[in-house]
Amino acid sequence: MPETMRALCKTRPEAGAELIEAPIPQIGPDDILVKVRASTICGTDLHIYNWDAWAQARIKTPLIFGHECSGDVVETGKNVRDVKVSDYVSLETHIATEESYQTRICQANVEPSVRILGVDRQGSYAEYVAVPARVAWKNPKAMAPEIASIQEPFGNAVYTVLSAPVTAKTVLVTGCGPIGLWAVGIAKASGAQAVYATDINPKRLAIAEEMGATIAINSAEADPVEVIKRETGGIGVDVLCEMSGNPRAIKQGFDALRNGGRVSILGIPSRPIEVDIANDIVFKGATIYGISGRLIWETWYQTQAFITTGMVNPSPVITHRFKLEEYAEAFKLMNDGDAAKVALFPQ
Amino acid sequence: MPETMRALCKTRPEAGAELIEAPIPQIGPDDILVKVRASTICGTDLHIYNWDAWAQARIKTPLIFGHECSGDVVETGKNVRDVKVSDYVSLETHIATEESYQTRICQANVEPSVRILGVDRQGSYAEYVAVPARVAWKNPKAMAPEIASIQEPFGNAVYTVLSAPVTAKTVLVTGCGPIGLWAVGIAKASGAQAVYATDINPKRLAIAEEMGATIAINSAEADPVEVIKRETGGIGVDVLCEMSGNPRAIKQGFDALRNGGRVSILGIPSRPIEVDIANDIVFKGATIYGISGRLIWETWYQTQAFITTGMVNPSPVITHRFKLEEYAEAFKLMNDGDAAKVALFPQ
Amino acid sequence: MPETMRALCKTRPEAGAELIEAPIPQIGPDDILVKVRASTICGTDLHIYNWDAWAQARIKTPLIFGHECSGDVVETGKNVRDVKVSDYVSLETHIATEESYQTRICQANVEPSVRILGVDRQGSYAEYVAVPARVAWKNPKAMAPEIASIQEPFGNAVYTVLSAPVTAKTVLVTGCGPIGLWAVGIAKASGAQAVYATDINPKRLAIAEEMGATIAINSAEADPVEVIKRETGGIGVDVLCEMSGNPRAIKQGFDALRNGGRVSILGIPSRPIEVDIANDIVFKGATIYGISGRLIWETWYQTQAFITTGMVNPSPVITHRFKLEEYAEAFKLMNDGDAAKVALFPQ
Amino acid sequence: MPETMRALCKTRPEAGAELIEAPIPQIGPDDILVKVRASTICGTDLHIYNWDAWAQARIKTPLIFGHECSGDVVETGKNVRDVKVSDYVSLETHIATEESYQTRICQANVEPSVRILGVDRQGSYAEYVAVPARVAWKNPKAMAPEIASIQEPFGNAVYTVLSAPVTAKTVLVTGCGPIGLWAVGIAKASGAQAVYATDINPKRLAIAEEMGATIAINSAEADPVEVIKRETGGIGVDVLCEMSGNPRAIKQGFDALRNGGRVSILGIPSRPIEVDIANDIVFKGATIYGISGRLIWETWYQTQAFITTGMVNPSPVITHRFKLEEYAEAFKLMNDGDAAKVALFPQ
Repeated sequence: MPETMRALCKTRPEAGAELIEAPIPQIGPDDILVKVRASTICGTDLHIYNWDAWAQARIKTPLIFGHECSGDVVETGKNVRDVKVSDYVSLETHIATEESYQTRICQANVEPSVRILGVDRQGSYAEYVAVPARVAWKNPKAMAPEIASIQEPFGNAVYTVLSAPVTAKTVLVTGCGPIGLWAVGIAKASGAQAVYATDINPKRLAIAEEMGATIAINSAEADPVEVIKRETGGIGVDVLCEMSGNPRAIKQGFDALRNGGRVSILGIPSRPIEVDIANDIVFKGATIYGISGRLIWETWYQTQAFITTGMVNPSPVITHRFKLEEYAEAFKLMNDGDAAKVALFPQ
Repeated sequence: MPETMRALCKTRPEAGAELIEAPIPQIGPDDILVKVRASTICGTDLHIYNWDAWAQARIKTPLIFGHECSGDVVETGKNVRDVKVSDYVSLETHIATEESYQTRICQANVEPSVRILGVDRQGSYAEYVAVPARVAWKNPKAMAPEIASIQEPFGNAVYTVLSAPVTAKTVLVTGCGPIGLWAVGIAKASGAQAVYATDINPKRLAIAEEMGATIAINSAEADPVEVIKRETGGIGVDVLCEMSGNPRAIKQGFDALRNGGRVSILGIPSRPIEVDIANDIVFKGATIYGISGRLIWETWYQTQAFITTGMVNPSPVITHRFKLEEYAEAFKLMNDGDAAKVALFPQ
Repeated sequence: MPETMRALCKTRPEAGAELIEAPIPQIGPDDILVKVRASTICGTDLHIYNWDAWAQARIKTPLIFGHECSGDVVETGKNVRDVKVSDYVSLETHIATEESYQTRICQANVEPSVRILGVDRQGSYAEYVAVPARVAWKNPKAMAPEIASIQEPFGNAVYTVLSAPVTAKTVLVTGCGPIGLWAVGIAKASGAQAVYATDINPKRLAIAEEMGATIAINSAEADPVEVIKRETGGIGVDVLCEMSGNPRAIKQGFDALRNGGRVSILGIPSRPIEVDIANDIVFKGATIYGISGRLIWETWYQTQAFITTGMVNPSPVITHRFKLEEYAEAFKLMNDGDAAKVALFPQ
Repeated sequence: MPETMRALCKTRPEAGAELIEAPIPQIGPDDILVKVRASTICGTDLHIYNWDAWAQARIKTPLIFGHECSGDVVETGKNVRDVKVSDYVSLETHIATEESYQTRICQANVEPSVRILGVDRQGSYAEYVAVPARVAWKNPKAMAPEIASIQEPFGNAVYTVLSAPVTAKTVLVTGCGPIGLWAVGIAKASGAQAVYATDINPKRLAIAEEMGATIAINSAEADPVEVIKRETGGIGVDVLCEMSGNPRAIKQGFDALRNGGRVSILGIPSRPIEVDIANDIVFKGATIYGISGRLIWETWYQTQAFITTGMVNPSPVITHRFKLEEYAEAFKLMNDGDAAKVALFPQ
């Protein structure tokens, strides 16, 4: 075992990041050390890289960021029983306090003092990462490292789509980032009657079609509300999965929603936005779920089922693969909107 | 049977209303004619009376307004089977189209072309009102007319409170208008662990205490978020019933809500308002129900159970009783915030 | 319009049936007259034909039986608004009393005084059938008559499978009659992780495979509990859809169910059977849904979605097609276990 | 700290038990040692004491039995963080394996390899008991020891009653043992419209009335189905909580249940019994929940809310209090049906 490792670090409070040689993390008695096979780039990582307002308020430097990952357990703390050296794992990245009301009533994903890997503690853009053993999810040995890694954001999509019934219903996914694209595939595999997807990026819309969208609507070119009302006999969609965080898309989503419909919101507007509570929520009789993270571990089992059975092929969404040291090119592609999900390989 | 009747009519597109002599309504083959015993004043009626922006956009004059009522069936159309002359009824005021997707999947309360009694068709501020027989709810003979009448708005409160479990949970009711006040009593009777209520009107807060509020918080004098956080050990409430439509109260409500909590919104802001979707819905993992009307007829059965068993005494909320011709005094009291629910008796 | 029609009638309280010339039914003011295109044979019809104990207790002769059907509206009563002559319809066969607690709380399918077409009133094995207009479901013009007809039993399967979430879960269907076979296809189309099916009839098991069963288990040859425990890593299935009514299959189903699993029972044992409530329900923490009929109309919309999108192809289950007058051959095939669903064409 | 303690032990495979001097349990690194204040007698303990067929099959002697208890933490293992010496605790008695499907999807109460305190491992009829720290529930200091102890079975009642909505509904509790009696109080406090209770023991029926039963029916003297049908206008009850395990009471419960109603079964018949699946489950459209243990920890929070607010006073059910050494008299009272819940104090 070497003493240091390569790691991608936000060393200073400014845009960018730096490849550094860092000490391999020490583990405590309840922790495991994971040798990272793949780490995939989340939108959150882009905020950190670009050092936007959110990142400036939240992140303490220096920070090795990155949280979506897969890898092999190479060391376990002395209290660890259920995870073994050589287990091939992915990580639940919401590390909740155990002695907390929400954790104790099975809502650990919204536990208020949750700490997020690669945000509130050292992350996975490195050769090794240390985490509490209780956040390890064991993968089948044959799963590709980048597929194992994306189970975390794929799980966001699963939780969003399945937060209420979707089978035989019409569904709109607003926003075709990676999670939106997987949501299209998940809704389709779950027996949605029709899945409409909106975005303004033609590359992403093409992937949405590949994932099974009934109609991928370029909302820069057509009015998605009009298209959807026409396709649904004037009724609107039963289900809206909001994945964009974009105020205009959110408004279109509510306008396309039928009275009595269901909305699950994962997208994060960058600031408070105007909402027509009277017409879009109350008179519409809408049910809205705020979606944060994933159910621990129910969503992971569902994710595994979708992927290992082949019901959803997540691969079309993974558009690029780089070595960790090529990170600058990876983040540039992300910033240019030319990539969907990008995988980094530290080995 | 006389040929004309006294009725309170919005005769011209301006503030106020006029007591007129109007023809007794003709009924069609599926309709019933009800001799009104009591009609109670809804907030909607105040909007119509005051002729605010909403009323100007929605109401076509001349209109006999009013929709909460009780009375005796005096005539039935020839196709009517299940309602009889002399039945003592209250009315479901959302008259939904039967051949409609929402109606056919048991969501008639949000059927998009629903017509509302006293808003979209001639209402109950009169000696007689005609409605389709299918909106009649039969009352026990011993129920007081004004109690029978307020079952409609009481049902709004029932549907709001019971849209998800409330037993053993902590509940915040923001806004102590009549529906908010009943919501306090309903939550309490349903086994809520604690019911907090907020308003800025001391008279209403006093009624909230009478209805069983654990703490009635004057939000002009104390910070309700602080009070609630302290009372709930820093966690916040499990359930928010938003009854005010007031942007500041709505924000306080979300701030006082625990992560993973439930919100039911009945209050109608007069215009779109800013909502912090990221922090108040998504990261909070909130579930939000838009509440429109009542479940037909499930809510009515629940309402009947609460009232006839005495589990909730609705009377403290009915602060004033007037003859129909004293309407001007009634609306003045409402406008001055000196009344909660006011009953008008046309006989 | 002729005055009489051909009809298959249980004329006397004994096994068999008789093709008779009967008067064309008169319709009342709320009724429609349907010219039958296709009528399909239900297991209930077989009980009536064979005149078993259940039929002897329930059926009053003479009875034109049959209830699954499709056809064209040729006449409407004077109060009928929402159905027109030439509408192409299928029929909801549970004719519930409207003024009833269950009907009024959206549980019309279990309304206690429900009358069933072709059981409690004259049915559809005829050239014409009369029903209340409110039980008519409008079909797309292009749907084949026998497909339109089987929407009724297909709806039983939809309601059974979708009575709780099935997506990403493991499912066992015990009993591969027509409804069980469709349940296999519906579970698969709804994103079930695996669908196991059991029966002892090799022809039906072959159709189960065609409908998408992961494993079709001949329980005369292999122990389904052993197979399922092995396939699910010892855990058992998440969901049991009981379609057989067979005591041994029911016991196997519970044994194969995981702790905390869900059971939906549509199968009808011919008499009370022994159930190990302690181990199979209580300690197992099972949730059990008794499934009667279909949700009116939610299940019909779901059924239409599955069939018209092609998500489920119901055709492999329709093994035989006969003219109405060939009924004897049709019932013989059913009795011999050589047919799944059989369609009769009266025209 | 002494080296030995008094304990009530099933020393030999035969009826009865023996007060012995046993070594104080050693704790492991994840365990706590609790000095018992009170331990209450469960029906399970009576089976063990009487050495019935179930006990003979399940219990390995020697066994210190008893599992409902409260006490003070006097020692904690070195890995224990969230429980401290001098915490006043009650114990969740279902000790589930953590690395298990059910535990990981929030169904730990039905985890298949769950070990039960005082059944599968040494229990609480002693001065001290050792358990994993993760099963400790912290009590308010002012709670009486026997009240703190009965939170475990009270939780069974909470989980049973609240497994689906009960507010404004009619409820039947069959079987007025301690858990049934608390269920009466809980249903009442949760806003049930009416709570009917059945038993054949007049003492227990008297307590049922004290707990708030609308009618306590002696089913040896009156037909409960007839009474309930009459009281509910012929409809039957919305909810059945089966607490007796008695075949006749179970049949009466189903007969009294309305079509579309809900059943929660906690009672344990001593052997498989005949169930009319066709009429009592399928055609009735019943939903049935098998209730095992409690939700960990949601039910405990609810229990605490009911008890600490005074919404339910559990005390009338605790009919007797004894010193541990008076155990023989306690078990005799239980066997004679002269006691409801009995508390033993080892100090």
